[in-house]
Amino acid sequence: MNVKILLEYDGTAYCGWQRQKNALSIQEVLETAISSITGETIHVIGSGRTDSGVHALGQVANFKTNTRIPIEKLPYAINSKLPNDIVVKHAEKVPEDFHARFSSKSKIYTYTIYNSQFPSPLLRRYSYFCSKPLDINAMERAAQLLIGKHDFKAFMASGSPVKSTVRHIQRLEVQKNGDIIRLEIQANGFLYNMVRIIAGTLLEVGIGKRDAHEMTSIIKSKDRFCAGKTLAPQGLCLVKVVY
Amino acid sequence: MNVKILLEYDGTAYCGWQRQKNALSIQEVLETAISSITGETIHVIGSGRTDSGVHALGQVANFKTNTRIPIEKLPYAINSKLPNDIVVKHAEKVPEDFHARFSSKSKIYTYTIYNSQFPSPLLRRYSYFCSKPLDINAMERAAQLLIGKHDFKAFMASGSPVKSTVRHIQRLEVQKNGDIIRLEIQANGFLYNMVRIIAGTLLEVGIGKRDAHEMTSIIKSKDRFCAGKTLAPQGLCLVKVVY
Repeated sequence: MNVKILLEYDGTAYCGWQRQKNALSIQEVLETAISSITGETIHVIGSGRTDSGVHALGQVANFKTNTRIPIEKLPYAINSKLPNDIVVKHAEKVPEDFHARFSSKSKIYTYTIYNSQFPSPLLRRYSYFCSKPLDINAMERAAQLLIGKHDFKAFMASGSPVKSTVRHIQRLEVQKNGDIIRLEIQANGFLYNMVRIIAGTLLEVGIGKRDAHEMTSIIKSKDRFCAGKTLAPQGLCLVKVVY
Repeated sequence: MNVKILLEYDGTAYCGWQRQKNALSIQEVLETAISSITGETIHVIGSGRTDSGVHALGQVANFKTNTRIPIEKLPYAINSKLPNDIVVKHAEKVPEDFHARFSSKSKIYTYTIYNSQFPSPLLRRYSYFCSKPLDINAMERAAQLLIGKHDFKAFMASGSPVKSTVRHIQRLEVQKNGDIIRLEIQANGFLYNMVRIIAGTLLEVGIGKRDAHEMTSIIKSKDRFCAGKTLAPQGLCLVKVVY
């Protein structure tokens, strides 16, 4: 049986999604929990890696199991073995060929910026703090120029091994709600650190360090050093994976 | 010089506002930080105690100092000595007789309930989780009956030493936003655990364990055992102190 699960997690305490030798990953905690429930050796496939400190409201994963636990009871059973910063919110049987990573059509991430004079203790775990005033209209104009199918090599952490650096950004919205600015981005796939570098570049537009129209030349440059800095992981959240 | 400060804090790591012998309080951390900045022995007066694990968006405190640090620089100076879960957001000179506790006219608290099938890792530090469906209309009707000047002895942790248990609830709103239910309550003062007991009683109305109209008889009883349970501290937040 191939099982698809929907997950929410607070990434603060973890080295990221992917299993690592010397640090605790969400994948390892999840595999240990499911294995202890089913009595099998479970290998979990995630829709994609999230970095150390990155959160998820809607990560998706799948695993093969012969468990007799009814599918609707499975989230409760797994959650009973998980720490309270990782929760399975849904489980369903899917066809044998469903693969959380390869079957995904697109993903939605948010990047949250807290824009105020002083940092917020209550939002510090889930946002990036910026005390400089932000020009939201300029950030929106810059965001518009990133939408579409482009080679986003300039927005990828340098040295990442991938075949193609072309991705299609379907949506990139800049939402302002009081002191909170949220970037919401949907694409058919993301390069390593792509959302955090886009957030850092848009932030530099917001504070007036760059002009919005520079986005076009940054894309063309295919040079990481032309884009802005990589913003901190705690502002990033994987909201949804679309299949 | 009498200085009034506005504070935000994440109460998770503290034993509450008030200084205690064997546990770390927000008052102690703040007094240590301000003392190290001014070189004086600083005593900070809070608008009221918050319990262990309770948060504040708008706690107010005052202290006497002879520091020469300009008042507008003071928040930055103090924050440089504070951990990132406590932040001073504003400082101003106030008349000698201003007292953060005795001068306050009213306070506003929120109590946040996360109402969904599974708990939320991202909201767990700042909300109480309830998986049972809630009847918001019934909770609103019950809340209406608590508004006004009443003897709230039934909604006070038993054994608390106070002269009068009469308080005036000026506002008590039940706001629903998706899976989040937020109680917002304003009163001229609060008894020990009053908001958390009111939240617990309204929650029992919401799940259908009590009728809304019972509020009137609970008030009349003046008996703690007639009211609902005390909800967990992490859902509570001191939002504003009015002077």
